[in-house]
Amino acid sequence: MKPIYLDNAATTPLDEEVLDEMMRFFKQDYGNASSIHRLGQRAREAVEKAREIIAGFLNCSPSEIVFTGSATESDNLAILGVRKGHIITTNIEHPAVFNACSHLEKMGFEVDFCPVSKLGIVEVEEIKKKIKENTVLVSVMYANNEIGAIQPILELGEFLKDKDIYFHTDAVQAVNFLDCDVKKLNVDLMTLSAHKIYGPKGIGALYVKQGVELNPVLFGGPQEKGLRPGTENVPLIVGFGKAIELIEKHKKNIPFIKKLRDKLIDSILIQIPNSELNGSKEQRLPNNVNVSFKGAEGEAIVIALDQKGIACSTGSACSSGSLEPSHVLSALGNKGHGSLRLTLGRNNTEKEIDKVLEILPEVIKDLRKVSGHS
Amino acid sequence: MKPIYLDNAATTPLDEEVLDEMMRFFKQDYGNASSIHRLGQRAREAVEKAREIIAGFLNCSPSEIVFTGSATESDNLAILGVRKGHIITTNIEHPAVFNACSHLEKMGFEVDFCPVSKLGIVEVEEIKKKIKENTVLVSVMYANNEIGAIQPILELGEFLKDKDIYFHTDAVQAVNFLDCDVKKLNVDLMTLSAHKIYGPKGIGALYVKQGVELNPVLFGGPQEKGLRPGTENVPLIVGFGKAIELIEKHKKNIPFIKKLRDKLIDSILIQIPNSELNGSKEQRLPNNVNVSFKGAEGEAIVIALDQKGIACSTGSACSSGSLEPSHVLSALGNKGHGSLRLTLGRNNTEKEIDKVLEILPEVIKDLRKVSGHS
Repeated sequence: MKPIYLDNAATTPLDEEVLDEMMRFFKQDYGNASSIHRLGQRAREAVEKAREIIAGFLNCSPSEIVFTGSATESDNLAILGVRKGHIITTNIEHPAVFNACSHLEKMGFEVDFCPVSKLGIVEVEEIKKKIKENTVLVSVMYANNEIGAIQPILELGEFLKDKDIYFHTDAVQAVNFLDCDVKKLNVDLMTLSAHKIYGPKGIGALYVKQGVELNPVLFGGPQEKGLRPGTENVPLIVGFGKAIELIEKHKKNIPFIKKLRDKLIDSILIQIPNSELNGSKEQRLPNNVNVSFKGAEGEAIVIALDQKGIACSTGSACSSGSLEPSHVLSALGNKGHGSLRLTLGRNNTEKEIDKVLEILPEVIKDLRKVSGHS
Repeated sequence: MKPIYLDNAATTPLDEEVLDEMMRFFKQDYGNASSIHRLGQRAREAVEKAREIIAGFLNCSPSEIVFTGSATESDNLAILGVRKGHIITTNIEHPAVFNACSHLEKMGFEVDFCPVSKLGIVEVEEIKKKIKENTVLVSVMYANNEIGAIQPILELGEFLKDKDIYFHTDAVQAVNFLDCDVKKLNVDLMTLSAHKIYGPKGIGALYVKQGVELNPVLFGGPQEKGLRPGTENVPLIVGFGKAIELIEKHKKNIPFIKKLRDKLIDSILIQIPNSELNGSKEQRLPNNVNVSFKGAEGEAIVIALDQKGIACSTGSACSSGSLEPSHVLSALGNKGHGSLRLTLGRNNTEKEIDKVLEILPEVIKDLRKVSGHS
């Protein structure tokens, strides 16, 4: 039986149109894009076409797009690649940013991890206060992967644009829903991932504004202008391009996704006592629900829901398996043991949401009985 | 028209059986392998099954296999991940090893780039002589990507096995043809790539012997035991496993590939005056032909052959576009402008080789006419 999939922040199903587009490069046009023969040239053309599509989406030049193996790699390139100095980030970043910054801190860089409000949003004033003479980079995610909190990227960009400080944003969770025009946002570096937008796993991109000086993190061949060595992943790059192209087509469904999200949030908070929404309701991705239930642990809820055909998570898939409380919820002052994250996608129906609202209250009730919180 | 593909060292066509195996994970089982629901667990099982297949092939434990985004990344992890000290490598390594070592040299590490013989083979005695008190790593490729020269990995492993020095080999070009039993070879670190063995582009692996201490190069989630963060690339990992499985099945064709190689080498040297084989004929991969022709430039030959339906290269695809002479040929003392590399694969036929032997002498003759070397 097909599950009700509400884990779209962890990964999205691959769009059939994306797969169709990739197949040509898995089958006949298998050349190495760096080969000079025609089979190589066809691969090269496809790579450059995808680059153009993505550049169009971001409103930048194709030469400003670097393909990487993942958003993690893009984040690492943006952060480890800068010159030595002071870095400002937040304490709710994805581990790819958070741990890259922590690594630099150990290497002798100065790093400030800016706190966020109780609603999970960093205040522009907090960032401003932390700027120093030697600040080289500000890295703030566009929208949080666990609680969907949308950060004030536009305001930060406006403030930073005339300063000699690079501004990086991890836009992985935002791309489906928010305006990613890099000129409007005044960002210098932006991280994208294909597998969160119905594209394939294993391909990411980094927008690197013309003139931004970055050092590579990996060393090898001259691919991607020396910033990311290794044979170009032609089929996945093509799929990435197609996935970006399809975002426009699906934009019209966002109000529907938001409606389902609000139905979930409102009904859960009404139907289930001692439940609490994590993060802002207003400055929130249209597809994110993150709720804590007193007396019911996140992992137990996820397992119980899975047995009833609902696939979701406690927070970030990247932290699954770890029993430590989420650094994001801790940053919000939430001391509970995890939460339930339901992240909607293109394919969800209202019927599915009604089913979830039928099952979830029972699951929580049963778990609370066991824990003595009924 | 389908080209005669003789650029298998640059990349191989994807095996249909490999693609079939991947499709399930592009279609129904799209979960994140780190998600705890069943869709995630099915992805996890597939990843671990692939890891077991690869471990079986290398005769190691599955826990010793780290999946990466490419062989370049594997090489970088092996080299940048070691503790500070003296490193020995050769001057014919793939850029992923060569440039990673050069980077470390700039960072204050001591690196020795060992010369090779005129036949492109490093001498064990040369490596032995360079060992110092503080040597931490020896990295020697199993077989060279440009000239197919097979290096004395077995002997080096034997010599290094009781020393407190890590031994890394980039086995990317060797995997199709040579014994990769890591216990027999006494290697501590081995780099593999899927797209050179009829698997997909964008997935690599590093064998890391139990007990070997490596620092990650990229930072993020806890995937791959913290050595390679980022969402597991489930379909490509599955494809990698299948590609490794198929190597065994195709082993029986190696003598035929070798026969075609020898026919190419012998006929070229006989039919075309002033032609010279680069690298050893005996210690050579069964699929590699690399020849220089006086008075005919590599790139011009490749373009001319491409127009006649033969896809091949001048050397490494990773260096295409660069007009500098190949560092491998320079290491052999070859001062010419490039060479022609023909690398055979599973799908080549004797008829194709005959066709090449019909076309190539004419192409060289024509080019020599232009350059005045007729």
